[in-house]
Amino acid sequence: MKIYGADYYPEHWDESVWDKHINLMKEYGIEWVRIGEFAWAVVEPREGEYNFTVLDRAIAKLKSNGIKVILGTPTATPPAWLIRKYPEILPVDYHGRVREFGSRRHYSTNSKVYREYAARITEEYAKRYGKEIDIWQIDNEFGCHATTYSFNECDRKAFIEWLKVKYGTLENLNKAWGTVFWSQIYSDWNEIVFPINTPTFENPHQMLDIYRFMSDSSIDFMNMQVEIIKKYSDKPITHNFMIDFMDIDYRKMARTLDFVSWDNYIATVDYDPLRQAANHVLMRSLKKSPFLVIEQQPGRVNWREVNENYDAEFLAMWTKQGYLNGALGVMPFRFDQIRFGAEQYHGGLLDYAGRPTKRLELYSKSRQETEGILSPKPEVAIYFDYENEWMHRINHVNRKFKYWDNIVEIFKAVRELGYNVDFVFGDDDIEKYHTLIVPYAFNIADSFVKKIKNFKGNVYMTCMSGLKDEKNWIVERIPDKLIDEFGIEVTDFGAIG
Amino acid sequence: MKIYGADYYPEHWDESVWDKHINLMKEYGIEWVRIGEFAWAVVEPREGEYNFTVLDRAIAKLKSNGIKVILGTPTATPPAWLIRKYPEILPVDYHGRVREFGSRRHYSTNSKVYREYAARITEEYAKRYGKEIDIWQIDNEFGCHATTYSFNECDRKAFIEWLKVKYGTLENLNKAWGTVFWSQIYSDWNEIVFPINTPTFENPHQMLDIYRFMSDSSIDFMNMQVEIIKKYSDKPITHNFMIDFMDIDYRKMARTLDFVSWDNYIATVDYDPLRQAANHVLMRSLKKSPFLVIEQQPGRVNWREVNENYDAEFLAMWTKQGYLNGALGVMPFRFDQIRFGAEQYHGGLLDYAGRPTKRLELYSKSRQETEGILSPKPEVAIYFDYENEWMHRINHVNRKFKYWDNIVEIFKAVRELGYNVDFVFGDDDIEKYHTLIVPYAFNIADSFVKKIKNFKGNVYMTCMSGLKDEKNWIVERIPDKLIDEFGIEVTDFGAIG
Amino acid sequence: MKIYGADYYPEHWDESVWDKHINLMKEYGIEWVRIGEFAWAVVEPREGEYNFTVLDRAIAKLKSNGIKVILGTPTATPPAWLIRKYPEILPVDYHGRVREFGSRRHYSTNSKVYREYAARITEEYAKRYGKEIDIWQIDNEFGCHATTYSFNECDRKAFIEWLKVKYGTLENLNKAWGTVFWSQIYSDWNEIVFPINTPTFENPHQMLDIYRFMSDSSIDFMNMQVEIIKKYSDKPITHNFMIDFMDIDYRKMARTLDFVSWDNYIATVDYDPLRQAANHVLMRSLKKSPFLVIEQQPGRVNWREVNENYDAEFLAMWTKQGYLNGALGVMPFRFDQIRFGAEQYHGGLLDYAGRPTKRLELYSKSRQETEGILSPKPEVAIYFDYENEWMHRINHVNRKFKYWDNIVEIFKAVRELGYNVDFVFGDDDIEKYHTLIVPYAFNIADSFVKKIKNFKGNVYMTCMSGLKDEKNWIVERIPDKLIDEFGIEVTDFGAIG
Repeated sequence: MKIYGADYYPEHWDESVWDKHINLMKEYGIEWVRIGEFAWAVVEPREGEYNFTVLDRAIAKLKSNGIKVILGTPTATPPAWLIRKYPEILPVDYHGRVREFGSRRHYSTNSKVYREYAARITEEYAKRYGKEIDIWQIDNEFGCHATTYSFNECDRKAFIEWLKVKYGTLENLNKAWGTVFWSQIYSDWNEIVFPINTPTFENPHQMLDIYRFMSDSSIDFMNMQVEIIKKYSDKPITHNFMIDFMDIDYRKMARTLDFVSWDNYIATVDYDPLRQAANHVLMRSLKKSPFLVIEQQPGRVNWREVNENYDAEFLAMWTKQGYLNGALGVMPFRFDQIRFGAEQYHGGLLDYAGRPTKRLELYSKSRQETEGILSPKPEVAIYFDYENEWMHRINHVNRKFKYWDNIVEIFKAVRELGYNVDFVFGDDDIEKYHTLIVPYAFNIADSFVKKIKNFKGNVYMTCMSGLKDEKNWIVERIPDKLIDEFGIEVTDFGAIG
Repeated sequence: MKIYGADYYPEHWDESVWDKHINLMKEYGIEWVRIGEFAWAVVEPREGEYNFTVLDRAIAKLKSNGIKVILGTPTATPPAWLIRKYPEILPVDYHGRVREFGSRRHYSTNSKVYREYAARITEEYAKRYGKEIDIWQIDNEFGCHATTYSFNECDRKAFIEWLKVKYGTLENLNKAWGTVFWSQIYSDWNEIVFPINTPTFENPHQMLDIYRFMSDSSIDFMNMQVEIIKKYSDKPITHNFMIDFMDIDYRKMARTLDFVSWDNYIATVDYDPLRQAANHVLMRSLKKSPFLVIEQQPGRVNWREVNENYDAEFLAMWTKQGYLNGALGVMPFRFDQIRFGAEQYHGGLLDYAGRPTKRLELYSKSRQETEGILSPKPEVAIYFDYENEWMHRINHVNRKFKYWDNIVEIFKAVRELGYNVDFVFGDDDIEKYHTLIVPYAFNIADSFVKKIKNFKGNVYMTCMSGLKDEKNWIVERIPDKLIDEFGIEVTDFGAIG
Repeated sequence: MKIYGADYYPEHWDESVWDKHINLMKEYGIEWVRIGEFAWAVVEPREGEYNFTVLDRAIAKLKSNGIKVILGTPTATPPAWLIRKYPEILPVDYHGRVREFGSRRHYSTNSKVYREYAARITEEYAKRYGKEIDIWQIDNEFGCHATTYSFNECDRKAFIEWLKVKYGTLENLNKAWGTVFWSQIYSDWNEIVFPINTPTFENPHQMLDIYRFMSDSSIDFMNMQVEIIKKYSDKPITHNFMIDFMDIDYRKMARTLDFVSWDNYIATVDYDPLRQAANHVLMRSLKKSPFLVIEQQPGRVNWREVNENYDAEFLAMWTKQGYLNGALGVMPFRFDQIRFGAEQYHGGLLDYAGRPTKRLELYSKSRQETEGILSPKPEVAIYFDYENEWMHRINHVNRKFKYWDNIVEIFKAVRELGYNVDFVFGDDDIEKYHTLIVPYAFNIADSFVKKIKNFKGNVYMTCMSGLKDEKNWIVERIPDKLIDEFGIEVTDFGAIG
């Protein structure tokens, strides 16, 4: 399967314009569209008043014109009536402030009432379109705008339940978190609060569990939808992951997805092609299988401080780069360029007057140039772990250190030597690679320590690897369990500015 | 009428010192004083307990010595007893935090209870001094310290009422705001909230209406006072506008004022004479008539990070610059230099011991040097619009772009070529100018588009002009309605860093 | 008395490890330990359930091995059960936000309920260990993490009571605070609030009283504990002051302490030996007597952005520097290096596996190198006053100006000329010095003005000295009361960038 398509918003246009759009899609070889992921208030303008006319007619028209449909569930944007009725759905940020209605992603994944409403609308979508559409996308960019993190009372209660499951007893928790330090011993589960705006540094073991819990909350919220959809539909299910995004354990999240999708925007202020490649490879490595670029930056975006334009040739190049790194498709975001809304400055494949752009033309041509591209055969494995990312965020010996940025530097160096790379996780097989790199791996899973010891090829390790256990304690002797293997013990260390 | 005077605070001194002050005024030709604009707690120390003795005696003494009085209504500083009784008067900032009592301007213009108290004290002032004093100033520096914006529940309710008047129906509002984007469709007026601390970018059409509403709120609050005063007094009414200040539509605010006044402080960290001139010209252009510099920086101020001193010659130069740009007077702030209070480091015309300074001496001499200065005859018109300023603040393609700063650069270039400039607004006549410049005018009023087409002289337009309609939507074809006139269409664009 | 010792946390270890620790202490000459200052939840895990086993056994074992004990009261860390029961204990920061449980110092010193609980646990400590241990430390680093300042309702009420004592009548307060400025006149004590998040600059006289009140609150809270301890124990009492710390008037706080202790960490990002010396000298100058470095940075710390390592020779050098400036001991923080908790990256005298480090070895050797060091004989006095520090923080003519930083520059210049320095306070005798410097002394106490006039040696004064009275008003004529003495009057001034 190859996917040539784009993201499309029929509800943003008068129905009379759809024909013109669809004719252009056909003219330029757009065979797939993703639609519907922000359409909740369109289909349910008041509580319980469903009106699927727009989606029904758009899907019918697209399908009858031979265009395949990826349908997104609309839970990233709870409608105004729902927030007005249950303001406790709104997330609370790290500063203790409610994040208000008026943009998107304004919900806590742990809100029980929101889970009910989200389940209900998902079920409506699944029942109605489960047979008709071709692929499902759950929600939109979980965790975008730092929304993985919410600290309201729902979140606190859910965190305590999560801790009860993990630790069983408070005694275990007190021991794991080292609460004897600074007199933080808990005598009742309900004493546990989020360390919001504390006078000084938080408990690093508690923080790691908070990062884990928040990631799990998004994954649970997604899986709830996956299960509902599977009751009504046997179409593949995906979610659009983000670039350089480390708040959610995507490896864990990807388990219940049929394939990984992601949104490929330029990650850094300056365009760095190899950094883009690192993101492609990470996405491919999550399931060690082809992925979909379900949103591809088309040219100018709207969310930077300075939003520059890009020649249309960039889009063609980015598309080819996706295929070269194992993509099964690259879909520019978005087909139609829109005059209103928070993304009004974002480029599209059409212009503001609905005319085709050079971007559309070159995207269309890139199709023949990507025919026959083979998937790369990786030779070098780089160990990566989302939990390490979180450990590196907490009270660091060098707070300027960025785990992923430094992993990317190693990735780039290896690619520049001409080798193909996979990122590998603790439970991956690594026998097929000829070289293994274990960079900045604060904690190395026990199972992976064994793999390192058995690895036939060269293993490279950096500073900081093997410094921590899974509770985020520093180990007694560094690198943990690998002193004999590498023939070196780290007895002291410090950061260099 | 020429106004030679200064700002004065009799209530800051023991009455025994007034004679010394007034003798110095007479000695140095100070014929006008502005007084009373922060005196509320002096005249009403407890609710309903009026004691006008200090103002009565000060005004009587000034008038009997031939000094004319500009009296300010004291509504910029609601007293402690009022805030304690009605804390809901306090404004709420963009972060959702109450702005507390303890400085000044601690009120929301939309608080109904505050409007009642403000009306009452204004009426007391107007009844008592309506015949006696010479000019009225309403409140003090509306919007200073970002107080145009308040987001409490009073403000929200007032905003909804304002929207009902503007749009009539929610259907109209939903359409104008493009609420179909990101599922923001409203089904009940009361669902509308301020987008405070939202996860990501706000609705740009809603934001523009918020800017308009907040500006209107200050204007309404002022006009309430204007109407009360007119019941008791036929003296001219003004308000002191601010330098480089764009939160309130001064063009609209100036309509009910008899003349424009403004407070001329150095706008930028480095002194830029032509930027000061641009402000003078903007103030003159609001009503196309002479204005009063009702507060003139005398030398050192107190509110900068580093408050440097200025030689007294600067005050003389600034005074002359005011006249050269069409001022009817320039009043240094303040006559008396004060040892206490939040402005204790601010310079005055006297020193801390009450002795005359060289500033007073040179200000006094500047009088003869400004005799006979004629008002400038503008030749070049630069289109300016407060609503464009607000559009440029919202989700910009280049968030570093500053509308007014860039207008000033054009103003400076024209002045350096030797031409006099007026700023012109959409409803101004422009026939008398030989050249018209329309810079960065996102939206150009329909009526002004017609004037551009009919203009006899050269018209210069820049990038970004004609990009938006009045709802803050991007137009289909750019520049809107002027493609034929200029013979160019903009089909794509981007920001340059 | 000379104190060779280190800070130690027996509760962080299984009792089985203590023997190994104590043997190492004896081997390396550690004769003193400070313990127990964060042990509240260990000894009172639930309200009223005391369990002193750990402290009892640790103290017994230490004492029986000839190691002397400094015991800290544990009030810096109220347990989770107490905060859950009385959340009003939590402090509120300058932004109006509650500072949550989850680190340390999460209490307002003005909370009445917290004072009760703090008194109770102090009494338990004092009763149990009053005879047994050797020195008391009250709490830990009062004011650390900006916790001198709290703005909750308890604090507001306490502030009003403090003001009543100081001013007697509102009339006096209104006059002293110059509340006629900006209409801030109070007609009822209860109208007084903290100027949190005000639209603009606060009342500078109110602010000075707030700084004084907050400092007094910490001092009162400490003195409450001092009095309780004295009922049960005749051992010396101290408190660990901080480096470069100016929120509390340490001169006033030191009065009820038997000697001054302080925590010597590198004050600035770059290590500046003379700045460290200035801190030693300030600590010595508080009581003009020897002080204890009760915590000495051992090498790497954990709380910087980039926590570099230091060769062990640094610890030896820092130790000797302490003695050369009049210390009676220098105790590295901490003996045991810990694998968990918010300070897990902080260095110690042992390594993570409990093995002695080169730091321990060199600290041990420094003992013989510090034998016979004599206390310095100061020749030059530099006038210093915590209240001046606070005045320099408020609405300054040059907000970049830092009082203590500039005092340190003068200190360094004098030391580089080869002279020993004391800091002197308003009530110190200054006859024994040959030179007096009065730098940046906004307000000079009346009693000290007399001393300046009578001083036999040279007196050097800088700009800004004598600008303010004790209410933080600018004086009429500058420098206040010293114009004749110095033969100069400052009639105008300004800041230089």
